[in-house]
Amino acid sequence: MPEFFNVLPPDEARELLFRHLTAVLPAETLPTHHANGRVTSKAVFAPHALPQFRRSTMDGYAVRAADTFGASESLPAFLQVIGEVPMGKPATVVLGLGQAAIVHTGGMIPETADAVVQIEQTQTVSGDRLSVNGERVPFEIEVLKSVAVGQNVLQVGEDVGLQAEILPAGHILRPQDVGGLLALGITAVSVVRRPRVGILATGDEVIHPEKVAGPGQIRDINSYTVAGLVEQAGGVPVLGGIIRDNFAALETAAASLLAETDMLVMSAGSSVSVRDMTVQVVDGLGKPGVLLHGVATRPGKPTIVGAVAGKPVLGLPGNPVSAMVQFDMFGVPAIYRMQGVQKMPRRGLVWAQLSQNIASESGREDYIPARLDDGQEGLIATPVFGKSNLIYTLVNADGLIKIPLNKGGLLAGDWVEVRLF
Amino acid sequence: MPEFFNVLPPDEARELLFRHLTAVLPAETLPTHHANGRVTSKAVFAPHALPQFRRSTMDGYAVRAADTFGASESLPAFLQVIGEVPMGKPATVVLGLGQAAIVHTGGMIPETADAVVQIEQTQTVSGDRLSVNGERVPFEIEVLKSVAVGQNVLQVGEDVGLQAEILPAGHILRPQDVGGLLALGITAVSVVRRPRVGILATGDEVIHPEKVAGPGQIRDINSYTVAGLVEQAGGVPVLGGIIRDNFAALETAAASLLAETDMLVMSAGSSVSVRDMTVQVVDGLGKPGVLLHGVATRPGKPTIVGAVAGKPVLGLPGNPVSAMVQFDMFGVPAIYRMQGVQKMPRRGLVWAQLSQNIASESGREDYIPARLDDGQEGLIATPVFGKSNLIYTLVNADGLIKIPLNKGGLLAGDWVEVRLF
Repeated sequence: MPEFFNVLPPDEARELLFRHLTAVLPAETLPTHHANGRVTSKAVFAPHALPQFRRSTMDGYAVRAADTFGASESLPAFLQVIGEVPMGKPATVVLGLGQAAIVHTGGMIPETADAVVQIEQTQTVSGDRLSVNGERVPFEIEVLKSVAVGQNVLQVGEDVGLQAEILPAGHILRPQDVGGLLALGITAVSVVRRPRVGILATGDEVIHPEKVAGPGQIRDINSYTVAGLVEQAGGVPVLGGIIRDNFAALETAAASLLAETDMLVMSAGSSVSVRDMTVQVVDGLGKPGVLLHGVATRPGKPTIVGAVAGKPVLGLPGNPVSAMVQFDMFGVPAIYRMQGVQKMPRRGLVWAQLSQNIASESGREDYIPARLDDGQEGLIATPVFGKSNLIYTLVNADGLIKIPLNKGGLLAGDWVEVRLF
Repeated sequence: MPEFFNVLPPDEARELLFRHLTAVLPAETLPTHHANGRVTSKAVFAPHALPQFRRSTMDGYAVRAADTFGASESLPAFLQVIGEVPMGKPATVVLGLGQAAIVHTGGMIPETADAVVQIEQTQTVSGDRLSVNGERVPFEIEVLKSVAVGQNVLQVGEDVGLQAEILPAGHILRPQDVGGLLALGITAVSVVRRPRVGILATGDEVIHPEKVAGPGQIRDINSYTVAGLVEQAGGVPVLGGIIRDNFAALETAAASLLAETDMLVMSAGSSVSVRDMTVQVVDGLGKPGVLLHGVATRPGKPTIVGAVAGKPVLGLPGNPVSAMVQFDMFGVPAIYRMQGVQKMPRRGLVWAQLSQNIASESGREDYIPARLDDGQEGLIATPVFGKSNLIYTLVNADGLIKIPLNKGGLLAGDWVEVRLF
């Protein structure tokens, strides 16, 4: 009855899946400020330099640097202040020899100036001041320290040069990227369409969470835990409901859900007969069908990894911990991949020191739920043991410790990679 | 002209702010499967045990363990299989001495059984089999290995006990938490209302991103970068637009936006006069007003931290990097705090090894944008240097290296904390 699985290590299994996926999904255009978390569909270039004009980085006086050379507290340079550069306006003041103009942080530098003296390095000597309204009231200052050409000045293009590539394709947009685009007036951006992920739960014992569970029945939770992971990765979950353990019913539901989505996930029961049925259904959906049946991991060995016409099709084990771990291992990277992301985001990977020994089997990648606490030298990971069918081992955990394929276990004090979960 | 700031280290500044905030915001009830990322407003308890019935963890036979004692390959125990427990149904089979019933993984254990023999540990001897429809067709098996009482059986309450506290108040819901709640039939959950964060940009030089920037003008990006950070932390950004550098205009806009939100953020210019105006506006909004004016960090020293009637009010420096770093330092923790989260989420904190020396000033917490690359022993952080007003230093960075308050710099090879950004 038990069949011999074609079991691959997770990295190889993932590569096998990726080789059968269609390239990136189509693009759509979004207002830039609504594009956080979305992925660029093509490289973006700067339509103009940033800043577009020379700006002061200080409150002070725009000057001709040469006029300050040799200035010191004991031998200050005297300059005549002849105007002010108002914020948001062109710097129209024209400086002659020995003249200066008030500038504020971020303000434009007059064409005839080449440096800014910080206000703290000056003293007012005589004459009137500028009025708050910016009326020109000339006065004289002492400059107590010389400035070099370009000092306290942001040059044109110092942030971004004209036509520079500012973002590559396949980049997940963060708030600062949105800011960088808007700074250049790029108010719409081309991003990859969010992958739609169809999710089916199967099992005669599975009921909707709203229902009262009778003897032998359990509520569907995998549809919702997987949906949560789909959303976190930038996909759109499409729930297909609960299907009985019946080949025809599952085949019909799977085919119709796959037709309207970019990926299909079936969370099947864990018995061999149900798994066999899922394999047949996946193979019946199209080519190539099942790519492998079994991954060298715990939990989740009996995962079915397949592809149909360029779309990933996954058969997850029915138990909730295996289902989440396996979806995180195959479904989440596939969602990123379909958006054109080449490198998985690092958010959520931390290192921690083990508080106790953990046994493992060599030749298998183990994922152990763990609690994280702050220690003297960093984080401390304490395993939360429990049978892999217990969802509360994950609820009570902060993440999963990864025990690499060829480790026969880990020792207390070892540093381990923990995937926050 | 420059005033003496009341400068505090960031941790103390944050504590000072927190002491002036109203406790947690009011709660609202949501469908559990829409509550990912939201924060529980009160502890949640299990309305029933999980599992609610004894379940098999294997495909095999439910047995009375005593009937298998002493069984081995050379001296197997003979059992009569008298029925099958169908998935999703009560286990009505009653086992007598020497009898067994087929069970599938996840299936219910008959009351008269106390263990499960894995199918791989048995051989069929004689008689008919069960039909696929579950018709009773008795047959005989050899059990090749004894099982202990409880073996391969999930006990009632082994996942969660009746009335156990399953989630504390102030817990950020993750997909597995949603799953854990739904497993217990908890399809609605009480969460804290999302904090609404009002955002104002100020500055005569600031224009809407849609507009063409003339000489001296820059596009508003802080409204959008801050909005992105607000959303990431679970808040709702409310954009109040761009206000001229005019006391009355700013005062009116700030008062009306604060009235309809839970937090107010003003991204002001960086000149001293604009900062002074922001201080006056914050003080005029209500008590206690400005709590401190200046934080011992770089970038972002001239940040204004205040509170009005229990709501945080922040005056961020106008330059985009300082604005993001400072909002991340005060605004983001405040958003979590207002939702009742006591401990900031760890997502996004990684350790990396420095690729080069970095100078810093003791007595100041420095944040240096850095690129992260994979190294032999973990991540490698390479600083992205640039003036703090250049948004593209953040666009080109993966995160921020934190240089602690009392370090005079860091050396190549040092392990540093990097906040992914």
